[in-house]
Amino acid sequence: MARRLLDGLAEFSGPVYPVNPNHREIGGRPCYPSLSELPGPAELVLVMVPAQRVPSVVAEARCCGAAWLVLFSSGFAETGAGGRRLQEDVLAAARRNGMRVLGPNCQGLIYRPTGLRATFTAAAELPAPGDSGIAYLGQSGAIGGSLLGMAADRGLGLTAWLSLGNQADLTVAEAAGQLCTDPRIEVLACYLEELPPGSEWQELTTRAAAHGKRIVVLRSGRSRAGQRAAAAHTGALVRSGTAFDLLTRESGAVLVEDLDELLDTAVALTRCSCPPGARIGVVTSSGGAGSLAADQAGDHGMRVPEFDAETRAALQPLIPPFGSTANPVDVTAQVIDDSAQFGAVCRTVADCPSVDAVLVVLTTLGGRTATRIAESVRQAAERSGKPVVVAWLYSHDEIRAASQLLRRSGISVVPTVSAALRLLARLRPHGQRRARPLVRGLRPPGTMTGEAAGAHLLDQLGISRPRGQLVTDPEQATAVAEELGDQVVLKVQSPDIAHKSDVGGVLLGVPSGTASAAAHRMLEEVARTAPHARVDGVLVQEVVPPGVELLVGVQGSDNGYPPVITVGAGGVAAELHRDVTSALAPVSTGQAVALLRGLRCWPLLAGSRNHPECDVRSAARAISSISHAAAEFGERLAELEINPLIVHRCGATAADLVVSGR
Amino acid sequence: MARRLLDGLAEFSGPVYPVNPNHREIGGRPCYPSLSELPGPAELVLVMVPAQRVPSVVAEARCCGAAWLVLFSSGFAETGAGGRRLQEDVLAAARRNGMRVLGPNCQGLIYRPTGLRATFTAAAELPAPGDSGIAYLGQSGAIGGSLLGMAADRGLGLTAWLSLGNQADLTVAEAAGQLCTDPRIEVLACYLEELPPGSEWQELTTRAAAHGKRIVVLRSGRSRAGQRAAAAHTGALVRSGTAFDLLTRESGAVLVEDLDELLDTAVALTRCSCPPGARIGVVTSSGGAGSLAADQAGDHGMRVPEFDAETRAALQPLIPPFGSTANPVDVTAQVIDDSAQFGAVCRTVADCPSVDAVLVVLTTLGGRTATRIAESVRQAAERSGKPVVVAWLYSHDEIRAASQLLRRSGISVVPTVSAALRLLARLRPHGQRRARPLVRGLRPPGTMTGEAAGAHLLDQLGISRPRGQLVTDPEQATAVAEELGDQVVLKVQSPDIAHKSDVGGVLLGVPSGTASAAAHRMLEEVARTAPHARVDGVLVQEVVPPGVELLVGVQGSDNGYPPVITVGAGGVAAELHRDVTSALAPVSTGQAVALLRGLRCWPLLAGSRNHPECDVRSAARAISSISHAAAEFGERLAELEINPLIVHRCGATAADLVVSGR
Repeated sequence: MARRLLDGLAEFSGPVYPVNPNHREIGGRPCYPSLSELPGPAELVLVMVPAQRVPSVVAEARCCGAAWLVLFSSGFAETGAGGRRLQEDVLAAARRNGMRVLGPNCQGLIYRPTGLRATFTAAAELPAPGDSGIAYLGQSGAIGGSLLGMAADRGLGLTAWLSLGNQADLTVAEAAGQLCTDPRIEVLACYLEELPPGSEWQELTTRAAAHGKRIVVLRSGRSRAGQRAAAAHTGALVRSGTAFDLLTRESGAVLVEDLDELLDTAVALTRCSCPPGARIGVVTSSGGAGSLAADQAGDHGMRVPEFDAETRAALQPLIPPFGSTANPVDVTAQVIDDSAQFGAVCRTVADCPSVDAVLVVLTTLGGRTATRIAESVRQAAERSGKPVVVAWLYSHDEIRAASQLLRRSGISVVPTVSAALRLLARLRPHGQRRARPLVRGLRPPGTMTGEAAGAHLLDQLGISRPRGQLVTDPEQATAVAEELGDQVVLKVQSPDIAHKSDVGGVLLGVPSGTASAAAHRMLEEVARTAPHARVDGVLVQEVVPPGVELLVGVQGSDNGYPPVITVGAGGVAAELHRDVTSALAPVSTGQAVALLRGLRCWPLLAGSRNHPECDVRSAARAISSISHAAAEFGERLAELEINPLIVHRCGATAADLVVSGR
Repeated sequence: MARRLLDGLAEFSGPVYPVNPNHREIGGRPCYPSLSELPGPAELVLVMVPAQRVPSVVAEARCCGAAWLVLFSSGFAETGAGGRRLQEDVLAAARRNGMRVLGPNCQGLIYRPTGLRATFTAAAELPAPGDSGIAYLGQSGAIGGSLLGMAADRGLGLTAWLSLGNQADLTVAEAAGQLCTDPRIEVLACYLEELPPGSEWQELTTRAAAHGKRIVVLRSGRSRAGQRAAAAHTGALVRSGTAFDLLTRESGAVLVEDLDELLDTAVALTRCSCPPGARIGVVTSSGGAGSLAADQAGDHGMRVPEFDAETRAALQPLIPPFGSTANPVDVTAQVIDDSAQFGAVCRTVADCPSVDAVLVVLTTLGGRTATRIAESVRQAAERSGKPVVVAWLYSHDEIRAASQLLRRSGISVVPTVSAALRLLARLRPHGQRRARPLVRGLRPPGTMTGEAAGAHLLDQLGISRPRGQLVTDPEQATAVAEELGDQVVLKVQSPDIAHKSDVGGVLLGVPSGTASAAAHRMLEEVARTAPHARVDGVLVQEVVPPGVELLVGVQGSDNGYPPVITVGAGGVAAELHRDVTSALAPVSTGQAVALLRGLRCWPLLAGSRNHPECDVRSAARAISSISHAAAEFGERLAELEINPLIVHRCGATAADLVVSGR
């Protein structure tokens, strides 16, 4: 491995000093017994010694003026408590001496502009000509090596490559931030095994946006992280890392789910603006392949729209009669032999106003014809400015040159129709900017518990709730009930009872005249089923008129990430059918409407056969208010839930609010 | 193209006679002016002349004793009505002369055992050593060429390859049936652009099963087919081709959705028995890659279970302390250098009783080490007999030999974790055998219309329905209602009204004493909103006690496919949340329970907090009965729907049955 490391440094533009007390020469270079005996200063020290010897090397490194240490050695935090202590000691020593650390337990770095290849991964030796403008940053060297291998396959050289190992000091986010000012880097491809603190990640995304760099992220560890124990119902419906995902999308970065996607998306981002919509124009030389694309488009949230009359008229002279000028456009094998004509078809489709992106699907087509077709696609893409992706279903070896030509122009070439559709779907902007937070001096949530406290917050936010009154003596219930209407709801109030209905603590549709008797019976039942619960009294509440029930929940700000507001279909649908959508808080009323539109139960709100239109605006205002409160509370809020928010034909009522502070 | 065709025939074991009146020699072979002047008989005539000249060639072909014509020529049915007529004429002429036809508009065939390469696709020239035991059959030559290219990339030669073009005579299903008796073929990889008649497809799957051949199917044209106009609610919820899909799965064939999957699944089927469950053991050299697998498993319906204590104990001596003996097993880079040890890990994981299949995820690993690891995986797979799939995230060029070694042993090597998981999910048996149909002499559905007719069928099947009576005079309604209980439901009966509630034709919870008055008002309202509807009277029905509502629908037998029974969550959930499952009819009561278990709304039936357990058995019996009726009716039934089937704590009631015959 040491030998591989030295070989890799052959093209480095600066001096390289091997250090080893047992050798006088390594690989034709003079070798030095220790860092203190180097003939000149060293900016970067590459350390490949057993973990126990690392502290002495760090101490020595001070002598040679090193600014950075790359600790390849393993045997640190990844091995347990002892290793973690050793890692902390090494880091402290480095800091005392003004040195920064990459690693430990890492595979080093590559920076092509200076010819620096300071890594022992075999993948770095694969031929991969040309700077792609893509940087890889990740803890894992194995995943990084895989990415180098895949890039080599695609004829791409990564401009920078960093395996950050245990991230004792330098993290993926900080390193990515550093590369934002590098004019040679266009896309930061990040692989994350743990989520960075929110502040660090926001800093990176802001910086990247400022410098016009694009970020694509693959994260693992979802299954390991598990679900945070959640008191509220929505807590179990929101997958771990949702705040990270939403924040990443809001910044315009792209999230992917597999390694090939990390690379193929990075390639596409070196060129393209993201497609503003889901409408794809498909150009293919095979009716069957076009049909596969049309079949699968919907599975990826994309559409293959019909072309307008002008586009079809423009295509007509370019396509033989047994082809198709409809979308997907089947140019037939005949046109494939005329790359100029094929290019004209691609341009015409790209120019179609109802097309947001172009998918070219090619089949049996290799060698020089392939290169000519690739060049015509490249030119069409360049002229149109719309995103173009190529699914090339053929032998990789036969299309090597052609696909390299395309990829170097930022046109991803992928081996399947589904990979192409997935890529186009990923490129679509998904995030929406948060609204500007309002500050209204709310009483902090930590001081509130129980239904009455929730009611107070609803009143502060101007959200309707059922009128009602707490009675401590059941005898008062009837008098209170008769003020509220013909029928009422009775709810036991106790700090010790989480699920009132489980202990007989909720009675619906109680005739007001019999409220006191019912309250008596209820308290007896609760005393029997929950004998140790402290009971504050009985809440006598008006009956809320029926409507469409929604669930509205907030996970409070955590680890530097903004709060997440989640809306879902109420009743059993949220849980059974996972019909929920989330956004970072706060959201405006308009954004709240967009969230509601994203629910499968939207037709119930919007009105349809047998369902009158609901007051979506009022529901959205309530959701927006709650989200602003969550933003104002910041990390003091743990969770908050309205379950249900009942949306009427006019108005919306929060039947219940549960809030917990930190 | 003619030249490419002739070159391809160089290795054919029999004589080859070029025919062309304008040449005396082609490619070193003597050329004959017409088919009637050949020096010997010709079994197979390859026809590559313009469409208009094909009839004369067919007439001539009789002279040389040809049994088969391969019509490469295009310009037939694919071009429209004129071409269709020409195709019919050609086919009739061939039949008269006792000849069968492959094509027209096809790219020919390859059969490696006799060295026959009768195709002009360039893909046939790619080096692809070794018979894989896989046959491709599809209409499309372009898709077929892509598959040849992909196979060449994977180091695989397809044993047989047929592009069937317009299928004027020989179809994919018939050709596949022929290959079932070929001992050199193990897997039939079929690409279908249109669905074969059910009888033909059932014949093939039965034959394949009898000869131990596996079938994998990719079909396109879903989006083109569109949805059949459906009167019943479930019709819109069942995607087109569901009967084909269910029948295919029932037979043990595998359905895939993209071209790479067609090939990779075929490779896996040359070796493996299908995994009996969803539990996968993951072995990897990279913790990150293992984590990606664990994250994504659930998305593909797979699980990464915990190992039992014995398996962990057996792994313990094989894995360094900084690796992981838990699932996913991280062997660390150290073990990768020792292929015997890696093989032992794979064997141990495969032997674990809680593992149904093994996923090996490899990263940066190429050259000879790669081949050694591949060999150890192959041996472990051979020993265990469980399905093994390898996700190898690296440069294709670097692992060429290693992955070829694996694929030739029936172990698929795919480039991403998600492709591997998708493949394992596809391999799982999904179908269930239909129950044996009962015959009970039901009155055929064509004779029935309206609610009363549906009621008759429910009675024949022994399915409970609300008691009720049709009154032709509204004055009778109160008397009838008072027999039925305190409250009743009134429903207008008219052959012209599909959606009664849209025209005010349904009244719920009518006090029995006021039923006549209500019936009068309802008929007036209907007369106003649907003035031209013929009205048979008013159905006075008892109120059904509440319960969990289900939707039960049947699409009748069609095109030779069995009927499809679909159950779904009732009310809005089926439509909004697409919570439906389907099976081929008939199903047994046990299979009906399995269908219900597959619904997301199952917890409502099974009982949970706030929901009492329902009488699932009664619901399943009703579903099974309906499915048997559908099987008995055969193609005479178009559609049938119970909406809703209300499942009580005891019993189940079909609130409404709509049936339409053909």
